[in-house]
Amino acid sequence: MGALHAGHERLIRQARDECARVIVSIFVNPLQFDRADDLERYPRALDTDMAICEQLGIDLVFVPTLREMYPVQPACTVDPGPLARHLCGAHRPGHFSGMATVVLKLLNAVTADRAYFGEKDAQQLAIVRRMVADFNLPVTIVGVPTVREPDGLALSSRNMRLNVRERTLAPRLHRALLAADGLITTGEPDPGVVTRTAAAVIGDDELLRLEYLEIVDPEDLQPVDTIGGPVIVAGALWVGGTRLIDNCHSAPPASAR
Amino acid sequence: MGALHAGHERLIRQARDECARVIVSIFVNPLQFDRADDLERYPRALDTDMAICEQLGIDLVFVPTLREMYPVQPACTVDPGPLARHLCGAHRPGHFSGMATVVLKLLNAVTADRAYFGEKDAQQLAIVRRMVADFNLPVTIVGVPTVREPDGLALSSRNMRLNVRERTLAPRLHRALLAADGLITTGEPDPGVVTRTAAAVIGDDELLRLEYLEIVDPEDLQPVDTIGGPVIVAGALWVGGTRLIDNCHSAPPASAR
Repeated sequence: MGALHAGHERLIRQARDECARVIVSIFVNPLQFDRADDLERYPRALDTDMAICEQLGIDLVFVPTLREMYPVQPACTVDPGPLARHLCGAHRPGHFSGMATVVLKLLNAVTADRAYFGEKDAQQLAIVRRMVADFNLPVTIVGVPTVREPDGLALSSRNMRLNVRERTLAPRLHRALLAADGLITTGEPDPGVVTRTAAAVIGDDELLRLEYLEIVDPEDLQPVDTIGGPVIVAGALWVGGTRLIDNCHSAPPASAR
Repeated sequence: MGALHAGHERLIRQARDECARVIVSIFVNPLQFDRADDLERYPRALDTDMAICEQLGIDLVFVPTLREMYPVQPACTVDPGPLARHLCGAHRPGHFSGMATVVLKLLNAVTADRAYFGEKDAQQLAIVRRMVADFNLPVTIVGVPTVREPDGLALSSRNMRLNVRERTLAPRLHRALLAADGLITTGEPDPGVVTRTAAAVIGDDELLRLEYLEIVDPEDLQPVDTIGGPVIVAGALWVGGTRLIDNCHSAPPASAR
């Protein structure tokens, strides 16, 4: 969706290392915005984006118009089913259907052999992987680790909306996830204990609202009753008017499995 | 779905005339059956199907196993949205989602440049066409006219389930559609008048139950208030325990538009 940052650059560099040709698609997809104001306020920086792509030696930047992508309102869409029931899916109705639909369209339009997605958007990545398997799409999906600021804040195009005070509060989501990871890797099996402890790390502030903090299976994205294997801990935190997400992959010690 | 008849042969022959290589896929897709007994009773004739494909000089017959097509229950499916709200879609919950999902899978697995579908399944054809457009699928969809018995009955794998008495009643659906077409082409603008007259042609018989008879726009498949341009008239008729469908494309005289 453009407004490229160092997280995107990492995706692009890895693609450059692994592929003969690299195409960057930039399209702010209205179908995946559940709130009109979020679509309107979503950062756009095409000139800077083009300069970054030029500098990274990208072969092609695909910047379709709204009319090219949606000559008419699509009748057929992708239904991500149970994968969209939890985490962000529970709070952003239609978001993952819109995301999966545009990813399917872009993959077909670009006919990529490999497609690179950031791990920061864990639910998105899991849904794209599952869509590729479920629909037999001839593409390999590559997940790329999250790039962070020195204080742990995950890079996001939305970070540029934060004012100075909000920016100081924003890393608390990552800190909460670190706390959760610490409990899980030392054997705490109860997801309720883990999420309550992690939520306490975020603390109270009039600028903060924790939208969710959930522990789910990494493949089917359903909440787990007991942490007996690898999980994703994921959360969404409102910092002022900006919604930030982050996640970590955790696993209990071998002795606890 | 196999149990090949002269309608399928027409599809295959046209593909042979237009393409360098022809692949026939045969897969009875459980995802598109809304009733377990219909799936169980659906005709299967793989040996005969293979002989027909051999005789027609097909390059490849793709007969995936259930496990190959669905190693796990798919989480992501195609939602055909408003296109599945009327006609068969109103009576077969989940059918067109299952159909569109398997067609998308088969197109991706086979990577066909062109795919041939019978016009007998008008709603299926319209949904596949729209899915290809909505998802930017790199394939051309070709519709092939319905093949009929001398008395007008549209060929269908399900016809082999009809007993002698049911077989004599089955052409009434086509006759009703001919009556509807006659009214429309002579300028009757009221869909209610057309469908009531057509339904009367089917008549009463304890073996017959008209499931629906509807007049819809050929592209968005929504019912029309007034017949002011091309339409599809489509119906489903139960003959004993067998459900038959048929349709016709009709248009009012130029003077009535």
